[in-house]
Amino acid sequence: MYFPALDNVVHLLSTLPGIGPRSALRIAFHLLERDPVETSQLASALMKLREEVLFCKKCGGLSDEEICHICRNDKRRSDLICIVEDPADVFAIEKTNEFSGLYHVLMGALSPLDGIGPEDLRLKELAARLEVDSPAELFIATNPTLEGDATASFIMENFRRDNIRITRISHGIPTGAAIEYADRNTLAQSIRNRLEIK
Amino acid sequence: MYFPALDNVVHLLSTLPGIGPRSALRIAFHLLERDPVETSQLASALMKLREEVLFCKKCGGLSDEEICHICRNDKRRSDLICIVEDPADVFAIEKTNEFSGLYHVLMGALSPLDGIGPEDLRLKELAARLEVDSPAELFIATNPTLEGDATASFIMENFRRDNIRITRISHGIPTGAAIEYADRNTLAQSIRNRLEIK
Repeated sequence: MYFPALDNVVHLLSTLPGIGPRSALRIAFHLLERDPVETSQLASALMKLREEVLFCKKCGGLSDEEICHICRNDKRRSDLICIVEDPADVFAIEKTNEFSGLYHVLMGALSPLDGIGPEDLRLKELAARLEVDSPAELFIATNPTLEGDATASFIMENFRRDNIRITRISHGIPTGAAIEYADRNTLAQSIRNRLEIK
Repeated sequence: MYFPALDNVVHLLSTLPGIGPRSALRIAFHLLERDPVETSQLASALMKLREEVLFCKKCGGLSDEEICHICRNDKRRSDLICIVEDPADVFAIEKTNEFSGLYHVLMGALSPLDGIGPEDLRLKELAARLEVDSPAELFIATNPTLEGDATASFIMENFRRDNIRITRISHGIPTGAAIEYADRNTLAQSIRNRLEIK
């Protein structure tokens, strides 16, 4: 259709999440119209990303070494493990300064329709950690979606041990939102999970 | 915030059109989770884009040589020049197989609010072409936007010559669209520009 070098960039860009063929073409034209230095900066930044950012061998989160700075930190509670779907969730929870335990990143959620089963998630690694670390609490923070809920249920069924407390992140009306505009499911859950004021 | 290599990719990606910081982060995580080969393919495709795709010295459209294959083609009408805003417009018009003349790409449109004046467009190059090629017709195909209309008016005022016919791409109801749902401006223009059936 266009020039092979342009076709190739458009094709590769449109495999990225949130970029369709039209926006890929727009990006390619944008790069062509700018200083070539900008394009080479982007290309080398992409190469550096894969060279310098690794996945922690223990928790599966992002790391610049084999074991990440969170897993290496002695001051964090090693008996409390927060289970999340993606490395990005670790950053979101860290930003709150509310959590002092360790993490376990599943790298996704159960989704039979997309062919993602338990063996595709880092659940074997979670089982191994339970043997070695014997945590007191598993805190499940998967997304409140169909897939996240299914994953949470699967973990609750398969990782229940007498000496492990299993908790789940609370769902409800987001801070600053109006009850009037909350969707029915969120509202229903925040009624079922209502908290006693002491 | 994150790792320097990740921050850098997110920053550079979010300077691209249609990509905000959130989608840039999603793309970076996507690349991290895939085979590193995919990332290096994208990086080298980007480098190749700038090495292999140039702008034609004559029309300003995309080319793999100094002068593009359209400007080099003897079979095209050299006395008919279609004026467009961007190289992408050349591809769109070529796909119709309705145009057999040459092109002149302005590389944008007049937009005082964005600080884009006549000197930022390839208008000097257009003036030079009028001297050398003395075309019989200038066919203006800028976008039917505020900026495109302003650019068309500017060209009509400044490039009017006794021996040059100036035409403009017709605006109206798109094929397959319902008149009921056409916006008022489009409908008004397609009434003003109604064609006599012969």
